[in-house]
Formats: sequence, C-alpha cells, structure tokens
Amino acid sequence: MAVHDEHVPSWNPQRPSAMPYHRYRSVYERVAVPLTDRAWPARRIERAPLWVPVDLRDGNQALAEPMDTPRKRRMFDLLVAMGFKEIEIGYPSASRTDFDFVRHLAESDAVPADVTVVVFTPARRDLIERTFAAIEGLPRSVVHLYTATAPVWRDVVLGRGRAEVHEMIRDAAGHLARLAAARPEDIRFQFSPEVFNLTEPDFVLEVCNGLTALWDACPERPVIHNLPATVECATPNVYADQIEYMHRHLERRSDVVLSVHPHNDRGTGVACAELAVLAGAQRVEGCLFGNGERTGNVDLVTLALNLYAQGVDPMIAFSDIDAVRDTVEHCNRLPVHPRHPYGGELVYTAFSGTHQDAISKGLARHARQAVESGVPEGQAPWAVPYLPIDPADVGRTYEAVIRVNSQSGKGGIAHLLRAHYGLDLPKRLRADFSHVVQATTDDSGREATAKELWELFRGAYLAPGHDGPVTLASWSTEETAPGEHRFVCDLRRAGDGERRYEGTGNGPLSAFADALAGAGLAVDILDYAEHATAAGPGSPAMAYVECRVGDTVRWGAGQDTSVLTASVHAVLAAVNRAL
Amino acid sequence: MAVHDEHVPSWNPQRPSAMPYHRYRSVYERVAVPLTDRAWPARRIERAPLWVPVDLRDGNQALAEPMDTPRKRRMFDLLVAMGFKEIEIGYPSASRTDFDFVRHLAESDAVPADVTVVVFTPARRDLIERTFAAIEGLPRSVVHLYTATAPVWRDVVLGRGRAEVHEMIRDAAGHLARLAAARPEDIRFQFSPEVFNLTEPDFVLEVCNGLTALWDACPERPVIHNLPATVECATPNVYADQIEYMHRHLERRSDVVLSVHPHNDRGTGVACAELAVLAGAQRVEGCLFGNGERTGNVDLVTLALNLYAQGVDPMIAFSDIDAVRDTVEHCNRLPVHPRHPYGGELVYTAFSGTHQDAISKGLARHARQAVESGVPEGQAPWAVPYLPIDPADVGRTYEAVIRVNSQSGKGGIAHLLRAHYGLDLPKRLRADFSHVVQATTDDSGREATAKELWELFRGAYLAPGHDGPVTLASWSTEETAPGEHRFVCDLRRAGDGERRYEGTGNGPLSAFADALAGAGLAVDILDYAEHATAAGPGSPAMAYVECRVGDTVRWGAGQDTSVLTASVHAVLAAVNRAL
Repeated sequence: MAVHDEHVPSWNPQRPSAMPYHRYRSVYERVAVPLTDRAWPARRIERAPLWVPVDLRDGNQALAEPMDTPRKRRMFDLLVAMGFKEIEIGYPSASRTDFDFVRHLAESDAVPADVTVVVFTPARRDLIERTFAAIEGLPRSVVHLYTATAPVWRDVVLGRGRAEVHEMIRDAAGHLARLAAARPEDIRFQFSPEVFNLTEPDFVLEVCNGLTALWDACPERPVIHNLPATVECATPNVYADQIEYMHRHLERRSDVVLSVHPHNDRGTGVACAELAVLAGAQRVEGCLFGNGERTGNVDLVTLALNLYAQGVDPMIAFSDIDAVRDTVEHCNRLPVHPRHPYGGELVYTAFSGTHQDAISKGLARHARQAVESGVPEGQAPWAVPYLPIDPADVGRTYEAVIRVNSQSGKGGIAHLLRAHYGLDLPKRLRADFSHVVQATTDDSGREATAKELWELFRGAYLAPGHDGPVTLASWSTEETAPGEHRFVCDLRRAGDGERRYEGTGNGPLSAFADALAGAGLAVDILDYAEHATAAGPGSPAMAYVECRVGDTVRWGAGQDTSVLTASVHAVLAAVNRAL
Repeated sequence: MAVHDEHVPSWNPQRPSAMPYHRYRSVYERVAVPLTDRAWPARRIERAPLWVPVDLRDGNQALAEPMDTPRKRRMFDLLVAMGFKEIEIGYPSASRTDFDFVRHLAESDAVPADVTVVVFTPARRDLIERTFAAIEGLPRSVVHLYTATAPVWRDVVLGRGRAEVHEMIRDAAGHLARLAAARPEDIRFQFSPEVFNLTEPDFVLEVCNGLTALWDACPERPVIHNLPATVECATPNVYADQIEYMHRHLERRSDVVLSVHPHNDRGTGVACAELAVLAGAQRVEGCLFGNGERTGNVDLVTLALNLYAQGVDPMIAFSDIDAVRDTVEHCNRLPVHPRHPYGGELVYTAFSGTHQDAISKGLARHARQAVESGVPEGQAPWAVPYLPIDPADVGRTYEAVIRVNSQSGKGGIAHLLRAHYGLDLPKRLRADFSHVVQATTDDSGREATAKELWELFRGAYLAPGHDGPVTLASWSTEETAPGEHRFVCDLRRAGDGERRYEGTGNGPLSAFADALAGAGLAVDILDYAEHATAAGPGSPAMAYVECRVGDTVRWGAGQDTSVLTASVHAVLAAVNRAL
C-alpha cells in the first residue's frame, strides 16, 4: 500500500538523484509475516525485560584492538556492579585471548552467585568441545549455539540447503546436550538463528521448535531462542511483526525465553528492541552505549533509561553514568558521542535562549514544588521542559545544563550568574545585560563561560562605581529624623578636582541623589533591588540601581558587605555609565 | 495492556534498582490518541518525503560555537549540492550573526532558482518584523512561526492558558499574513506547535485548522503544519499514532503539507520519522548526521540512505559521503561517531572471522555474477552479507572493509593478502597461516594491517626458501625425455659444507625431491599451487607447496618471475620449516 492517500497532493519539489538505487530491493516481500491482527502497536512496556550485555563477545569482536584480560575484567566487574544478571563473556573457541578470559573467570571468584555467564559457539563439534573445556568449573552457564540460517548466508557462506543446515544444527545441539549431561543443573542452552530477520519464518520455527524438544526444555530450565536482527534491513515495525509472529507460533512457549538481538545499521536498533518487547520478547541482548560490529549492537543504556524516564524500574543502576561511560571508553578505546542519549557530554546542555529560559523556569518551579510538598528535590516528581530526566539521577550536575553563546538569551545568562555567583538580576537588567553579552558572543562566535559572564558583568556594571568621570573620595550618611536622611560626600570629577556636596532625602540614596544634583548631575532612581550573594552573616550584598541621568537611563551595580555601600556604588556606577 | 501473555512465565533474575523511577510517569495516558484502526503498521515507504535540513537553525542553535557566516555558507552550499530543495537558513531575529547570514544569502546569488529557504520566528510582532526585514529581496521563502503549545510549557514558560496561547498565535499569524500580503507569490507559511507530542490533540487541531483558514491555504500554496517531537517521550509507535490521527483529522488536508520534526532523546528519532511517514507525514525536518540540541535532531543522512538500501530513490546525492561528513564536522566542530550509520569510519568494516569470511565470499560472488550477467559491478544487484549497501555507492572503498585482529579468521586474512598483494592462498595454507597470525595478534592484542600480514607471511613461508639449514648454491633442470626430468643442484647444509646432488622424476619438482632424498631428506610433495600476482607478462609468480618432510608436514612459498624458480624455493622453504 502506498503511504499517502490519494486525495493528498504531494508538495515535493525534489528531483531524482543519480544514485543507483535500482541495485537494491525491499526485503518486505521476503520477510513479511502473515500477521494482520498485530497486538504490539497498542501495548506498552510495563517492566524491564532481561538485559543481557554482549560487550565481551559481540562488542569485543568489533574492536580494532580487542580487550585484553585486564580490560575484559574491568568491563565484567562494571556489568556486575550495574546489576546485570546474565552476561555473555566470550567466544572461547575463537582465540586464545577469549579462552583465557573464560578460564580466568572460572578460576577466580569473579562471578557472583546470582550471575549467569553465557559463552558463544558455532555449530562445530571441535569448537563446542573447546567451549566446554573453557567453562569447566563455572557454575550457571548458558552455552549459546549460533548458525546463520538466512538464504543468502546458506547459499554464499555455508553452501548448504535448508535440510543440511538444519541437520548441522541438530548435530551440534545433540553434541551440546551430551557434553552438558553431566551437569544439567549448571548449564542451559541458547540458540541464535543468525540473520533471523532475513530467514523464512517457517524455517526458524522448524529449527527452534526442534531444539526446544531436543534440549528437553521446561519452565525451570527454559531454552533461550534469540532472534537477531543481525543486519537491520527494514523499518522497525517489520521486526516487531516478525517477533510477534514467533511469540505466537513458537511451540511450548512457556519453556522458551524469547530473546532479541538488534543491530543498528539503519539507526533504529533501539526502536527494534522496544517494539520487539511490545511484541513479546522477554530478553534483550545489546552493548553499553551500542558498541558492536559496524554500526553496533543496540544500546542497553538507552533502552534501560528510556524505561526509567517513563517511570519503569530499569533494574540496572546508572547513578554515575559518567563513570560507566569512562569505563566503556577505556575498555573499547572508542569514544561515546557528545550527543549520545543519556550519557553524552552535551545531552543535558542547552545553548538556545528559549530552551534556557524554559529550563531555568522549570528548575525553579521544581525546587519550589519540592519545598511546598515537603519531598526532597531528588525524590519529587520531575517535569522540567527539555530535560527528560533529572541529570542528578545519573550523577550529572546542573552546571553544564545551560551554556551561553550568541544563540542564548537573557534566561540562560541569568541562570549562570545565579548558579555560579549567587546573582539574581532584576528582570530589566537581565535584558540590558543580554545585549552586552550578545555583542561579545556575536563578535567572538564563541561560547561564554560563567566566569566570562561574571567578568563582563563586573566590567559593565560594577567597575564604573569605582572608576569613571565621577568618583567618591569619601562619604557618610545619617538619619537626621525619622524618614529624613542626610548624605555628605567628597566628589572627585574629572577636570574639576574634589569638592564636598551635601543632600537630603527620605532615604540615604535619595539624599545621595540630592547631593549629586548639587554637583550638577540630575539623577532619578527608577528601580532598586539588593540581595545577599550567599547565605549567612557577613556575606557580600549585591545592589542594582536603575537611574535616569539627564536623558539617559542606565543600570549600575555595587557589591559590598554593607548593603548601603553596595547601593551607593550602584548609583555611582549608573551615573558614570550615563556620562 | 501488559506486554507478556499470562501463560508465559518470566525468566528474569533481575532485581529492583535503587534508582528513583517513581519520579517519572508514562506519558501514554496523556498523549495517546483515540486510534484503534491504525493503518501505518501495514504500510511501506515507497517514495522519499520532502527532506528539509535545519542544520543552519536548529542544529546551529545547539553548538557551543555557532557557525560564522563562512561556515554557514559552506553548509548551505553543501545542502544545495546534495539536492535539498527546501532549507531552513536561520532564526534571523535571534542574533546579529543569524540576521547577517540571511542578508548575505539575500544579497548574493547563493540560492538557486529551485530552492526555497525557511526562516524561523517566535510569535512576537517585533521579532516577526525583524524576520521580514531579513528576507527582504529573497524570493521563495517560508516564514516559520513556532509557539510552544504543550501544557507544561504553557504553564511554566508562557504562564498562559490555552485560549491565551491560541490568541497569541492568531495575532502573530495575522501579522505575518499582513506583512506577506505584498508578495504572496514569494512567501509561504509554516507553523510548529512546539512539543506537539505532549500537546492535547484537540488543541493542536484547533490551532492548526485555524491557521489553515487564516492563511488562506490552497493546494498551490499549502500551509506547512510541522508537528515536532521536541523532546522524545514515548516509543516511536506512539508518535506514529499521533501523526496518523493528525493526518486523518486535519481539515482541508490537501491544502496542508504535514511535516514532522523528530528529536532523538530516546535514540529513536529515525524510527519516529519513518513510522511518521508511514502514518502520513509528507515532509521531514532534520540535520545531517543528527546534529541538534541535546541528543540532536533526526539524522537525514540515515533516513535517506535507509530508503536507498530498500531500493527507493533518496532524491539526495551521497556519492561522496566522506566529503559530506568532513564538511559537517568542519561546520559543527563536532565529530561524527565511528559507528554512525552509513557515514562512520567503521561501519563498512568487519573484524570478526565469520563476518570476514562471509563478506569475502559475498564480494567474490557479486563480482562473478556481474561478469556473468554482463552488468558492470557498480550497477549489478547487491546482496553481500553484512553490508547493507555497496560502500562504493557512497564513495567508500573496500580497503577498510576487512581488518584483521585476534578475532579474525582465515577468510579475512586471505582477503587482505589477495586485495593488497595479489596472493591467493590454497585453502589449507589459509588455515595454517591463520594460526601464525593469531599467535601474533593474541600476543600483541592489536590489529594487523595488510602490510603486517604480508611481512608475517614472508617471514614464515618465503624467507625459509632462501635462508635456513639447507640452501641452494646453484641448480638446473632439464627434460631428458618426454615426462622425464633431471634436477642437478649444489646444496649447502649447515655444518656439512656444499655438495652436488642429482635426482630424476616426472617433473622438475619430483626430480628435486629425488635429489633431496640423495641428501638424506625424505620429501613428499602433498599439494601444489601457483599463480601470477599481477596481470601481464613479467609479473612475479607465487608458488605454494605443501610437503611431508620425514614425519612433519609443512607449507612453503616462493616468489619469482619464473614459476619454476618460485616452486623450487617453495619446496626448499617447506623443507627448511620442517627441519
């Protein structure tokens, strides 16, 4: 069926490309399953499937420099610490390094009592025997047999027909069963029809159902049928259909753990896994941050935290996601991208003004609501614009959330000055200062750090209170009667020397303005605000004053342990900025 | 509905995490649309939607160092060269840099006659006016009005109710229409209800339908309603439902271009876009390689090449994807990840032995089929395991496809020696050499380059033909009668000096073996192969010989412009390896 309804005209000025797209064809006809009453699109995920990291096998196979034993051990310990209970540890018949690491785990006490390890083997008797030699002494192991079953692989790689491939699998599976017979309580079985997503559904069912019987599966010792999207080749709804079809047609369903293993060739690995879980998958294989051959395996970090962001327990701990990322980068010697969901350097960061404004307001409301409800902030319900989860939940700080450049507005700037320097600028001053900042960032094209913003603010609004055409050599003020203040000062004006002025008013600042009038400076105080910049006595106060000086309106600021002194300097700063 | 059927027991040893997942709740109830007869899951994408890159606006807003005009121009020229016909060029009222770039395009001849530019503006009269000032003189512009419509944004950011927000949008839209009235043929309109995916569907319909009428849309001048998943918050099927619902309920559907703008917070941006197109979207906004705020916008490269890999014309050219990547990295000052679909450094590379073997066989079959069918290789149908598309189609070479380390098998090694040095090792020699290679890569833990493999091969199989316990000082051979050969040589044996030996046989090599027998060396030739290493006369030949020497079986190799000389050295190499 074509996508667009007949009555919707296509407004599409694009032209045919010169790319040889005729070389490719849709897999849809080849892989579509006879499913018209699909249930998965109306479902939701209400609990985490069993996550099985394959970083030490599938991930490791894809590295230019595979992990050595110390790196593998570090990865294994990380996976255990995060809470994974089933972990694929290698392909012991593939190389000495792989074999040695499995022996290392068998001979050390590294595998906790509630963790099951998985080892991977092809369907060859000698390699199966070497696999069993590797796991000697390891309790709770899954032996994972794989064979490519898709037509292209059968033809090109194996050079065998369906019956021969099926016989090869049955022979290997029988050998597995015999070798495991001595320790049935320790060993379970897994089978992967590799390139499941390109294999005829009836062949998959034939092979998998045969193994369920041959391996004598039962609910207490189920067989794992793992159905990989070895190479992604269709939109994720097609994989979901395939999995729902298998979910419904696998025999002895309660003796089977239905597992999926999505790759990411089309950038839809996460979606394939999620839709597959909707379709009935109980177990998901993947790698931390999506390492793996080519475009990688599906990313278990994203999958687990996607559930988390929807209020479902991920069953895995991410309280320090940066530490997880650092270990993964160390072991794989590959970077995690700055925009990688949940773990990238930039993913809790906003540069654009509208986003910053919204986040800043959202964070403020969140803090307020936490106080009002009496729930600690780290436990209160989360609903902050542009931040799917509280960065603090995964050990990230707010510091990097808002960063300022030419795309940023007053909200972000105000947020940074508040977060880093305790400044709470009055609303009109925010707008005023944002012009100062934007002129600078427009010119430099670069980001401004909180420190740079503070320096800009100091230079623009604070410094003129101490340095400029008019300076105060000395000053004093007294309340001469209730509500009557007198201000005496020695003013130094450029080119005019130092002279004494006096003024009166209903407060010290209006008295100061009166004294300035005597010096020929017509000053109106339009707005005024002050606050402490830190908690506790003796903390410096910041004062902000908006003045009309002649025809010019300017903001000034002052900082001092005395609010009065800060305010006087703020007025003088405004005056000097106006002159 | 819970995901798993009642009768399927859960085999899941995972334990609750300590993560405060209770802080979050599913958006499902809030955003689910009343759709039970969804059509999208059974559809397929048969043509490319209109791709609209927003790198110069949404992408640019997310950079620590936004692009300056030269970088923006370079990005714009790239987008035009790739074939994009509608390009968002900025947010001219946000900063002077943005404004200046729009003016730069207006005043230069950079915009081809078949390209429409889009400029972005919030719903404020002064900013709308500045936007129109920016596009003065630019023909074919879309003015893109956005307003956040989701409840959290209305409450926290705008502090307005539904009616007020609607009024604000209507006022801005009316202002837009008045300013555009003078040039109706040049200017079209776009509206984005920001955070569409968290907005009540009836409010979206109310606002969008109102604008379709207010802007007097018609099929020749349709309005674009762009429905962003501003922050991803549910599995991609939920977004597809939302889009299908809008597709069915938007009024005057043929006067509307239904556009989507997915982000990637859940790592499912590509899936959201694809399922949205299945659901009726006609236009997709995104960025090259997925740049954008936080986790980025949906990646247009992946989307277009996903269609390509299914035999659908992407309508965009990617014949040199590395050049596209280099320009994007230059403009954004952010890397493209090595595993990024289609464009990453490692995505056409295989390290594991099974993958290499399959790819090697698949490439060989592809070349064979192309020859047989008479179609040039670059035009022949593609079906190579593990490679969704031919790397050559996007300007990548095969060189980096197969790389060898301890995870690799004989297939990959053989491929590299064939591709780089013209060697075609006999099957048993491949297995033999792979042990040599694996011992080295196991020890070093590192990747072996083609050159390193060649050095290993030379050291192991070629060098012993010239250096070892037995060397040939001189030799000659003649055919004494039909099928009768004589071999005379001066052999130098360590500790035994030089002596002359003679032998006869039905060929030069069997005569050489006979001569060796005279020297006390029992040599049986078990296997023999030779080939030229390059085309044309005078190219060196490579000979491979497997010999039993006493009780030991060894391979040796020889290289020379003479096949005979190469063969003699191969025998001697095998002998010396055995001794």
